[in-house]
Amino acid sequence: MAASSLLLPLLGCTDVAVIFADDGTLQAMLDFEAALAAAEAGLGVIPPTAAAAIAAECRVDRLDLAGFADDAARAGNLAIPLVKRLTARVAEQDREAARFVHWGATSQDAIDTGLVLQLRSALDAIEGELTRLADALAALATAHKRTMLVGRTWLQHALPITFGLKAAGWLDAVERHRQRLRALRPRLFVLQFGGAAGTLAALGERGLAVAASLAGELELGLPDLAWHTERDRFAELGAMLGLITGTLGKIARDLSLLMQTEIGEAFEPASAGRGGSSTMPHKRNPVTAAAVLAAATRAPGLVATLMAAMVQEHERGLGGWHAEWIVLPELMILTAGALTQTADVIAGLELDEARMRANLELTRGLIMAEAVTMALGAALGRLEAHHLVEAACRRAIAEHRHLRDVLADLPEIAARLDAAALDRLFDPTFYLGVAEVMIDRVLAARQLAARQP
Amino acid sequence: MAASSLLLPLLGCTDVAVIFADDGTLQAMLDFEAALAAAEAGLGVIPPTAAAAIAAECRVDRLDLAGFADDAARAGNLAIPLVKRLTARVAEQDREAARFVHWGATSQDAIDTGLVLQLRSALDAIEGELTRLADALAALATAHKRTMLVGRTWLQHALPITFGLKAAGWLDAVERHRQRLRALRPRLFVLQFGGAAGTLAALGERGLAVAASLAGELELGLPDLAWHTERDRFAELGAMLGLITGTLGKIARDLSLLMQTEIGEAFEPASAGRGGSSTMPHKRNPVTAAAVLAAATRAPGLVATLMAAMVQEHERGLGGWHAEWIVLPELMILTAGALTQTADVIAGLELDEARMRANLELTRGLIMAEAVTMALGAALGRLEAHHLVEAACRRAIAEHRHLRDVLADLPEIAARLDAAALDRLFDPTFYLGVAEVMIDRVLAARQLAARQP
Amino acid sequence: MAASSLLLPLLGCTDVAVIFADDGTLQAMLDFEAALAAAEAGLGVIPPTAAAAIAAECRVDRLDLAGFADDAARAGNLAIPLVKRLTARVAEQDREAARFVHWGATSQDAIDTGLVLQLRSALDAIEGELTRLADALAALATAHKRTMLVGRTWLQHALPITFGLKAAGWLDAVERHRQRLRALRPRLFVLQFGGAAGTLAALGERGLAVAASLAGELELGLPDLAWHTERDRFAELGAMLGLITGTLGKIARDLSLLMQTEIGEAFEPASAGRGGSSTMPHKRNPVTAAAVLAAATRAPGLVATLMAAMVQEHERGLGGWHAEWIVLPELMILTAGALTQTADVIAGLELDEARMRANLELTRGLIMAEAVTMALGAALGRLEAHHLVEAACRRAIAEHRHLRDVLADLPEIAARLDAAALDRLFDPTFYLGVAEVMIDRVLAARQLAARQP
Amino acid sequence: MAASSLLLPLLGCTDVAVIFADDGTLQAMLDFEAALAAAEAGLGVIPPTAAAAIAAECRVDRLDLAGFADDAARAGNLAIPLVKRLTARVAEQDREAARFVHWGATSQDAIDTGLVLQLRSALDAIEGELTRLADALAALATAHKRTMLVGRTWLQHALPITFGLKAAGWLDAVERHRQRLRALRPRLFVLQFGGAAGTLAALGERGLAVAASLAGELELGLPDLAWHTERDRFAELGAMLGLITGTLGKIARDLSLLMQTEIGEAFEPASAGRGGSSTMPHKRNPVTAAAVLAAATRAPGLVATLMAAMVQEHERGLGGWHAEWIVLPELMILTAGALTQTADVIAGLELDEARMRANLELTRGLIMAEAVTMALGAALGRLEAHHLVEAACRRAIAEHRHLRDVLADLPEIAARLDAAALDRLFDPTFYLGVAEVMIDRVLAARQLAARQP
Repeated sequence: MAASSLLLPLLGCTDVAVIFADDGTLQAMLDFEAALAAAEAGLGVIPPTAAAAIAAECRVDRLDLAGFADDAARAGNLAIPLVKRLTARVAEQDREAARFVHWGATSQDAIDTGLVLQLRSALDAIEGELTRLADALAALATAHKRTMLVGRTWLQHALPITFGLKAAGWLDAVERHRQRLRALRPRLFVLQFGGAAGTLAALGERGLAVAASLAGELELGLPDLAWHTERDRFAELGAMLGLITGTLGKIARDLSLLMQTEIGEAFEPASAGRGGSSTMPHKRNPVTAAAVLAAATRAPGLVATLMAAMVQEHERGLGGWHAEWIVLPELMILTAGALTQTADVIAGLELDEARMRANLELTRGLIMAEAVTMALGAALGRLEAHHLVEAACRRAIAEHRHLRDVLADLPEIAARLDAAALDRLFDPTFYLGVAEVMIDRVLAARQLAARQP
Repeated sequence: MAASSLLLPLLGCTDVAVIFADDGTLQAMLDFEAALAAAEAGLGVIPPTAAAAIAAECRVDRLDLAGFADDAARAGNLAIPLVKRLTARVAEQDREAARFVHWGATSQDAIDTGLVLQLRSALDAIEGELTRLADALAALATAHKRTMLVGRTWLQHALPITFGLKAAGWLDAVERHRQRLRALRPRLFVLQFGGAAGTLAALGERGLAVAASLAGELELGLPDLAWHTERDRFAELGAMLGLITGTLGKIARDLSLLMQTEIGEAFEPASAGRGGSSTMPHKRNPVTAAAVLAAATRAPGLVATLMAAMVQEHERGLGGWHAEWIVLPELMILTAGALTQTADVIAGLELDEARMRANLELTRGLIMAEAVTMALGAALGRLEAHHLVEAACRRAIAEHRHLRDVLADLPEIAARLDAAALDRLFDPTFYLGVAEVMIDRVLAARQLAARQP
Repeated sequence: MAASSLLLPLLGCTDVAVIFADDGTLQAMLDFEAALAAAEAGLGVIPPTAAAAIAAECRVDRLDLAGFADDAARAGNLAIPLVKRLTARVAEQDREAARFVHWGATSQDAIDTGLVLQLRSALDAIEGELTRLADALAALATAHKRTMLVGRTWLQHALPITFGLKAAGWLDAVERHRQRLRALRPRLFVLQFGGAAGTLAALGERGLAVAASLAGELELGLPDLAWHTERDRFAELGAMLGLITGTLGKIARDLSLLMQTEIGEAFEPASAGRGGSSTMPHKRNPVTAAAVLAAATRAPGLVATLMAAMVQEHERGLGGWHAEWIVLPELMILTAGALTQTADVIAGLELDEARMRANLELTRGLIMAEAVTMALGAALGRLEAHHLVEAACRRAIAEHRHLRDVLADLPEIAARLDAAALDRLFDPTFYLGVAEVMIDRVLAARQLAARQP
Repeated sequence: MAASSLLLPLLGCTDVAVIFADDGTLQAMLDFEAALAAAEAGLGVIPPTAAAAIAAECRVDRLDLAGFADDAARAGNLAIPLVKRLTARVAEQDREAARFVHWGATSQDAIDTGLVLQLRSALDAIEGELTRLADALAALATAHKRTMLVGRTWLQHALPITFGLKAAGWLDAVERHRQRLRALRPRLFVLQFGGAAGTLAALGERGLAVAASLAGELELGLPDLAWHTERDRFAELGAMLGLITGTLGKIARDLSLLMQTEIGEAFEPASAGRGGSSTMPHKRNPVTAAAVLAAATRAPGLVATLMAAMVQEHERGLGGWHAEWIVLPELMILTAGALTQTADVIAGLELDEARMRANLELTRGLIMAEAVTMALGAALGRLEAHHLVEAACRRAIAEHRHLRDVLADLPEIAARLDAAALDRLFDPTFYLGVAEVMIDRVLAARQLAARQP
């Protein structure tokens, strides 16, 4: 609502914002009204001529919006002034038809169904971007199956991993999000239609038939009953978006850490005017990471709001419903923006593999201590190997020497291992466990999922 | 963490709290350690005797907990002091076996898998209560298909509905929650096992085989890779719990409104010492509603925390992970408590059908204005009916008379409708639309879902 | 960011939204740039002619905004493309002066200080509305010191109170908010100025003098050091706004409950097109209450976001800072809107005192049970009075009779109290304790506060 | 509520947890009851003997807690079973006195005032820790006024700063928190006393006198009226705690980044069993930082909950009030824990100044590019200096050479600057602007504040 079109490409998604702009909102409600008239005419509830007259006016560019916002403020929602204006427009053409505008419906029917239609358009876009991101991550995981990287726990060097494994971890989460969204669609994309109190009483016994036909017109599911104050569908969508931004935030956090001057292993794609500084020429600012982290910072509060808003009163909510109007679009826009930016960055990610390899040496072999202990265990006996390596580590730290060199000086070692054997012990590529198998599993699961209907 | 055992039955669930109490937490980790040793012994990774010796000590009642909390504070988690104590205990019996405690695993493997095991126990309880609630709501919806009730929008009388429709709306949401939890289980109930950096490097090439066997031992799914810093599974569970408390909050809000002194249509079950007041003998305090609304107030913030906590660093999170340890149990406990209390209230709900019916008369017929207009339209023409009823309403309000009586005085009406016809027009049971059909749809969908695997 | 101008008057405040619109944001930053140049020229840091040339271009209507949003997305903030465009404009007039645009400053200096300037304008508006609300509440509390009302606890009738006491409670909270905002101003309205890393290094030893002069130019306080990543000031403002919407939400909740069809004690002011329904002529929808409750539902999540965003990295935040740009304006706009709407409603509130009085009789005297017990205690002895009234209450409930009549039938009572005495016992105006004194205390404290500097 | 005593020293504060444990909660309410009886006896409202008899039993160790939790669940709060048990105990000693237990009070009076008393104890502890942290930070800022450090923006090297400046920034925020808490105390530490509906009706005209005396007994302020459903005081406290954890989270984030293996500039104090790993001997895990970041992750959601809970109904809240009971203690405990841990770490912080200095060289002089440009401007003219340095930077990057060396090769430079002059240009200690002045300002302001009453 704090409209900043200038910040939109940075902190949101322009395309999705268009869907939720006022015009899009009104048109989605008009689409509901036109489909309602068509459904009712098809069932003989209203005259066919009325439906045609109504449909002809259900275009946002035919509305007179003067005073609309103030009327909405007085009425408490957008549907009341919309229906009033639509009725007036229809009446200009066909006085009788005007009586049948919005026939049997309540404001919330138009508003909720309109929002569902908008959400469908926006979720199509989001799922498209999620797929693009998954594809880019899969390419990265595949290409870097064996690209050596420091595994870091507590922000400290732990053991060697591969960059592919890191990417596969991100991918694995993204694939779960795709799975969740697929499962959500049939629950979410349903008609809202219940009339003033949810009984469709104004339509007598034909309420359900109209509902079924209207759902068909809009290609929405037909719910078992109206859900004016059961808002779990919208809150669930919000939660899914929150989960997605959480994963995107994790990726952005990782990338921004890898981009640190002292680490320098990964970089957002460079382009003119992007993340640089003329007075600080060495900077490669993680501009996208910042924007994505901003989204991940904002999303949880918005999700919480949607959940808090679920506590709606009786047959029409007081405030909770109104809160959704701002929060759900906001969350869609920021998620879409974060997704697009992350997909762009992943697709163009620059990696410095030499630096990755060099950073593995920063601890002068200590990062291989566990590996060396395991390997020496076979030759020396488990317990002796442990004590020996522990002592060597202490010495390496105290003397600022490489652990390999400290070990090489030990007669127990020298007697058993020549230089080549020692080198191999300190080669991190031999201490990757089943990293590659895990990457393959993620990639295979993804292909399996793609084949499912 | 702010432990109040005295508030637990009011604002939480004692049974679920027991699952997450310290003993439960440690035992779940010990179950992981025992199963790990068994899996490794089965594959020849460690000696079978070691596995047996380890398993024998994996019981929380055999641990010495002196100084445990302080050790955990220094180490940064519970697994480090646990493994240390377990190792010492095993060493007392079998010095060699002690070397194989926690073999190839990292602290987070034990902590996360332990938590997954606890969550499974707790979610079983929650799903059981959700089913109980659904059954009670279905009974209510069935029994009150035709129990007349004021439909209220914006907290104002709108149109007649039935109590069964209201209950069916609640039920419909609860059934969606059951559906969501079923879909969540295979995603959530998976092993965590990756070793220090997620590669299972300490186990060489046998890492995956151990993982598969370990998952089998614990009856958990085997994920494609370790998910130490991909926390969408836990955040998704949190979100589902948030959705559930949202629905419970909505039910509680409705019930508390119906229990108002001025409305008096529904009451929480009475029992000694429950919601009464000796000095205010007319009170029937909605004690359970308050507790459930408290849960619905607290859950969104906890869900938001879990989502914010998803942004975890590299291969081990710094703070985000730690936040989960408190927040997820808290959310399970409060959701379970709210569920149990709601199920109890719904199962024992007292309704005052006479009062419901009487309240339908509070507007002196105005609540039937729409119905009367629709009905008179056939006789008088749509437009004339509208004007006539509108004028009659204004007069009824101004003169504090019943709309039926105002209409009866009108010659246009008197000429066409006798008293019996007029009475029928004002009978709300004839203006319920497809309410009953909708209830039946919800009940049928539920039975269909129950038949599915 | 999800810009809806149509929902703005309903769910926000148009005037405050204008302050935070893109134009306002850019102009505030330009004001910073102009003042910076002036301060630097005054101290001989840059040539006076440069300052004049820069000031001449520091007008948003002179900027070319084509491509601005995309440039901002690449740069990561609005200041970089703004300074670039400003520099180009200045260069067209005075090539040498262009070198001194933004001299010694960093992007965040302009962005933060600009935001502080916007916040000051907006907070002026908010404090004005808060005062208007306080005045209206004081008038209400004064006018209704003795207007009888049911006091309701747990949504149940408890004891008699007065409407003035309820209004005084609201007022008391509003006055605390005013006090908090006064205390906040000197902390919040300070300059941000530190240069690239907070040391003002580019200005050598004159950094502090420039800062002091710049602060003076903008009528802002001079902080002890730059606060690029210490964001407690902004988060504190957010918290204050959250507290305000919390109080407004409480007022709205109360009013919406009082407006219920069954209670009908208070009403939002009526006007054409406001909260009515042609087909449901008895409705008086609490339209403003819904909008205010929506604000109270949204604010907590936004406050939480500002607090989560406080964890900013080193000398420039990554995401946390960016999140503030959207969230803080949003929160200001919604708080201002809720305030304005509440002030309007309170100023025009319609009360039905007869209904209030009638509702006091709904429990047929039971609401006076405590009062009667206390009063009879003097005559009968405390314990006997208690037992006697308790038994009478049970009988009144069972027989649907008025407690007064039940008591009148008791010989113990009849012997001691005649009808007039009994009537007086059941007169709630004699059981208001110190309600009026409390109201007077609140009003007096308010006048005392107004007199303070 | 999810009680984990084992996690308490890591993720909370044991001392503050004790204050909020059940015993502490009950005793605080009993303190209210004893003080109430004393105040009433002093004013002749109840017999002095009754007050003495009541006071004698107001000790938690004299209560029979069997069944207490279940009674509380039925009653909806802790006060009802507490008063019942207290009354029974008193009756055993003095049947008449038992009638005067809790005289004129309502449950919420005891619960809220009891909580205020607990909060006062806990806030004393928190303010003590905040002072200890401020002292440690002041010592750090003083000691490291000139300790060179890389200033990092966007996680990239920006310009040189000093460690003292970073510490002063943290300190500045902590001092603002101390200021805020001082201002909060008189608003927060007030009596709650209003009787069943806030009018103190049961005490007739003596209500206010009793309230004043009771406030005096408990050394609390006397509010202008009861605030049963105006909860801004508690929410404000929560907000203050959220602000504090935000600042602590910022410090923890900074420290954890400085502790990274690749940076290694600062370390949490070492001790046995703390943050190390036997198999990864190079690790210095930021254990405290993780715990503090966990607090900073959890606090915002809890603050949001307190704000959402402010929307309380009429004269007694339904759910919002109940939510406070868990959330406020939780927030106090985690804030206190994070504070204590941060103060410990800051007091024992290990710095590697050599590493700090070495890291300043990582960009091979590029970090000094701005400084060099400014300095050369005097000799070469501003514009020429800019172009020359920019070109030299590009070359230094391309050729992996130090910027100083690239410049030394340039004839324009060599002609004007000898090696010593060039060295000085690249000495970061000469490019610190007013960092030291700023540190002194923060330290001076702190001393000024300490002198104020």
